[in-house]
Amino acid sequence: MSFTLHGIPVSRGIAIGRAYLIAPAALDVDHYLIEPDQIGAEIARFHAAQEAVHAELDALREDLAADAPSEMGAFINVHSMILNDAMLVQETIDLVRTRRYNVEWALTEQLQILSRHFDDIEDEYLRERKADIEQVVERVLKALAGAPSTASLVVHNAASNGHNEMIVVAHDIAPADMLQFKTQAFKGFVTDLGGRTSHTAIVARSLGIPASVGVQQASALIRQNDLIIVDGDHGIVIVDPAPIVLEEYSYRQSEKVLEQRKLQRLKFSPTQTLDGTKIELCANIELPDDAQTAVEAGAMGVGLFRTEFLFMNHKNRLPEEEEQFEAYKRAIELMNGRPVTIRTIDVGADKPLDSMGGDGYETAPNPALGLRAIRWSLSEPQMFMTQLRAILRASAFGPTKILIPMLAHAQEIDQTLDLIQEAKRQLDDAGIAYDPNVQVGAMIEIPAAAIAVRLFLKRLDFLSIGTNDLIQYTLAIDRADNAVAHLYDPLHPAVLNLIAFTLREAKRAGVPVSICGEMAGDPTATRLLLGLGLTEFSMHPSQLLVVKQEILRSNLKAFEKPVADVLAAYEPAELATALAQLQKA
Amino acid sequence: MSFTLHGIPVSRGIAIGRAYLIAPAALDVDHYLIEPDQIGAEIARFHAAQEAVHAELDALREDLAADAPSEMGAFINVHSMILNDAMLVQETIDLVRTRRYNVEWALTEQLQILSRHFDDIEDEYLRERKADIEQVVERVLKALAGAPSTASLVVHNAASNGHNEMIVVAHDIAPADMLQFKTQAFKGFVTDLGGRTSHTAIVARSLGIPASVGVQQASALIRQNDLIIVDGDHGIVIVDPAPIVLEEYSYRQSEKVLEQRKLQRLKFSPTQTLDGTKIELCANIELPDDAQTAVEAGAMGVGLFRTEFLFMNHKNRLPEEEEQFEAYKRAIELMNGRPVTIRTIDVGADKPLDSMGGDGYETAPNPALGLRAIRWSLSEPQMFMTQLRAILRASAFGPTKILIPMLAHAQEIDQTLDLIQEAKRQLDDAGIAYDPNVQVGAMIEIPAAAIAVRLFLKRLDFLSIGTNDLIQYTLAIDRADNAVAHLYDPLHPAVLNLIAFTLREAKRAGVPVSICGEMAGDPTATRLLLGLGLTEFSMHPSQLLVVKQEILRSNLKAFEKPVADVLAAYEPAELATALAQLQKA
Repeated sequence: MSFTLHGIPVSRGIAIGRAYLIAPAALDVDHYLIEPDQIGAEIARFHAAQEAVHAELDALREDLAADAPSEMGAFINVHSMILNDAMLVQETIDLVRTRRYNVEWALTEQLQILSRHFDDIEDEYLRERKADIEQVVERVLKALAGAPSTASLVVHNAASNGHNEMIVVAHDIAPADMLQFKTQAFKGFVTDLGGRTSHTAIVARSLGIPASVGVQQASALIRQNDLIIVDGDHGIVIVDPAPIVLEEYSYRQSEKVLEQRKLQRLKFSPTQTLDGTKIELCANIELPDDAQTAVEAGAMGVGLFRTEFLFMNHKNRLPEEEEQFEAYKRAIELMNGRPVTIRTIDVGADKPLDSMGGDGYETAPNPALGLRAIRWSLSEPQMFMTQLRAILRASAFGPTKILIPMLAHAQEIDQTLDLIQEAKRQLDDAGIAYDPNVQVGAMIEIPAAAIAVRLFLKRLDFLSIGTNDLIQYTLAIDRADNAVAHLYDPLHPAVLNLIAFTLREAKRAGVPVSICGEMAGDPTATRLLLGLGLTEFSMHPSQLLVVKQEILRSNLKAFEKPVADVLAAYEPAELATALAQLQKA
Repeated sequence: MSFTLHGIPVSRGIAIGRAYLIAPAALDVDHYLIEPDQIGAEIARFHAAQEAVHAELDALREDLAADAPSEMGAFINVHSMILNDAMLVQETIDLVRTRRYNVEWALTEQLQILSRHFDDIEDEYLRERKADIEQVVERVLKALAGAPSTASLVVHNAASNGHNEMIVVAHDIAPADMLQFKTQAFKGFVTDLGGRTSHTAIVARSLGIPASVGVQQASALIRQNDLIIVDGDHGIVIVDPAPIVLEEYSYRQSEKVLEQRKLQRLKFSPTQTLDGTKIELCANIELPDDAQTAVEAGAMGVGLFRTEFLFMNHKNRLPEEEEQFEAYKRAIELMNGRPVTIRTIDVGADKPLDSMGGDGYETAPNPALGLRAIRWSLSEPQMFMTQLRAILRASAFGPTKILIPMLAHAQEIDQTLDLIQEAKRQLDDAGIAYDPNVQVGAMIEIPAAAIAVRLFLKRLDFLSIGTNDLIQYTLAIDRADNAVAHLYDPLHPAVLNLIAFTLREAKRAGVPVSICGEMAGDPTATRLLLGLGLTEFSMHPSQLLVVKQEILRSNLKAFEKPVADVLAAYEPAELATALAQLQKA
């Protein structure tokens, strides 16, 4: 029986093949109270299991193929780190000691506590790290049960029917397990869990394999060896498709291959509209080594280098200046003379690994409206100064810009600029080199920043519109909240008019402005943004060529009238008409 | 030694007197595991304590003086309800049974679990209800310890030195204890805990007694019989003041008495500016009986009748249509021909008493950006229809308006209006009377609603700007979050320009617009709002006369230039100058 499942599209393309089901994690364990004289032995059991998992991870790391995506090694390191973390180890032992839980119970109880903390986290990237902890706990539980952990990838009766186009279907995939996918030629990924920044998503994108994640019941509803289609552009999974559907998708798939080849040819042509307006396309990156991908995809620079990855390996704070400096420098060197825009830390005071070890864990009632990004940086000036010095030092190795997230008040901007001056003075005093002309810019992502953009234009060298957050606050909709995600509308007239206003005012003041939110990488929005006057786009490297293609076909003169109509259209029907006109212009 | 403490001002005025310390809650209890064969006896102990507290509450209810504020009886009823609630009783018994905790431990553990849930709640009013649960648990713990609960109000060595101007200082005050304050002539209240909608705050306002709550360490730092000054206008408590300070405050206090008398004389004069512009002053109310206070304070109507109180006595949902109808009708009748604007329910899917009894408790990651207010109502059409029918039925008894919170999209407005039509049809079919011309309006409290106000003007009869939320979303600041409360700025140029834009567009379209957020009741903002063209204010009844006084002194012509300067001033220094000019105009 044919049916269709819906999830989150995280890696573009179409895959057609047979389902290759991975056994779901067996986290069901016995719960019992132990006697006081068993406590020591129980804790020893835990440590033995911990050691066994360490050995497994070390073995996996050594097996890592030289050409495996760099993310994989990083993930294994993160797992090793979690395995030693006090929040997991010490708290679990405490539960064994004080409540006399058996170690399996203590471990799953502590996992639940940690999970709840992670659910409260604002930052999507960090929130996804919950899966890492679950996977580590699973490994430990398996070690406790005596089962070898490498058995986590179990193939049920995988019919070897010549169809070697296999699509992995799983509840969730541990990064270590993803190592096998490189050699086994899988064509797609489908998981029940995950989001845009889950491991599966990141690795699938780096391998260029279509993937849909968050497909709720996929691993329960799809049977081993079912024929399935993964539409990674729309997050759709079609199970046991009718012949006509299969034919349609096969056609689309071959079309996509052609399209990709055609797109590749665009890589070295200059980016400009039909009427000759030059457009700058940059990349958003998350790890220093992503700069390599950005260059390969033809990016003219990095428009947004997120620095949240620095938190992954550090419990309480950002790493030391030296480690940060090396990371920034690496990205700058990889970009080889193209500018790199480094955004200062954009997580909140509710970051997961902060107060967990401490006695009280306070979460903000609304972390998105709380002490995060620059607000948090300004409240922790020592941490912030360390990051500023590290960025400035890296600026000696290539063109670098500093981007400040979540500014809204004149005082905040001034305070930030003062701290940057102070960081420069400190480097001067120490005789350390940096680019004295490093540019400083602000994210425009709070409605007040867009409306009062004049405050920003007076003080800063450039602006970058973060459409994701700007939309979220303008509509008061958390798009990560499923209950209201349907109300998240990038084309709400209020959103479009705020973006238009920001671009217009920046242009008038002669201050460069780019867009680095998801709208910038959405080819269906390219004409609209061009028509609004945008000349700098920054996006995930995988989107660069498809957006470039749209730009090469665009005639700005022809957009003027329909874009004016879009901005004047408040009624949904009028807006739809104006947008359709624009696509035809 | 003189020192000053800072808290939240919740009831205006100055009180000078001796500290009357109420013994802090003794929630420290023994934790121990019981033997399996003690479980039955332990549960019986719990039920006995429960019964004892029921008897105490019944006795308190009977003792209630006929002239006690109506809130007090309501609070005692809420406590009785909590005492029977499964979330407290059943879960506590479960902890005794499954974990073998002694009942005191189980009770405090369950209190902690519930407290965490409450901390996640968006709605300030409901969040404050946590204190009710704590107070009920405290009573039960006292009953378990055998101590009579009426002893909770313990006076330590209260020196009867002729100074009968006593000021209550407490960690928190149970509503039942507040009963005694009516007869004992207390002059002020200071508590460590609480916010603007805590019981202490509500009762203090209803008694007209100055109060500062949330004064963190007050009950620890202030000693019995200390001379203290409570400045209820600023939330300040001065302990052991220097003679010159005491003199200053005594002077201010007598000035305030004079001022109050002067204000009282304004009650019956028409509200208009010096140049003859008529201004309408209405009241915000929270309970049906507050309408009485509103009339007494001279309100021309109710500009905002919050209906969240309906949730207080109902675990899973709004009460039945009949009960709602009676509540709305009571407010309408008390207003005696003056219009009553009823806002449909403004809590979220994360309301506290909903899924608690169930198996999973899901909180939104950012409830302020989640499924709340109209979003939630539209997702629960049956509940919403019940409320709409009840409001419509009440409209037969006096002029009534329906106010919809948190609208942002054209589709939401249309869907809401359709449901109102449907409710009218249902009443028509049943032959039930209602006002067919009942007006429907929207809160403007999301930035998108202000920016795209055109969508609202086309569809609705009136608008009401909710400045509190509008500021919160425009600045992306949760003002209930202490970590960022300093960034909550009603005078941010973006906020002022959004309010000005909304007022201007509404005026142009001929649609009446009022402001019902805290700015409306702040006399320092009166000139600015008048200058922006506001002619309808709605505020807490206690603010009506002081705002009216400001209006009577205002000359709109003279405001034009400084208000234009305020709107053009983006720089903090320029803005401050323009605002100062306005106050002098």
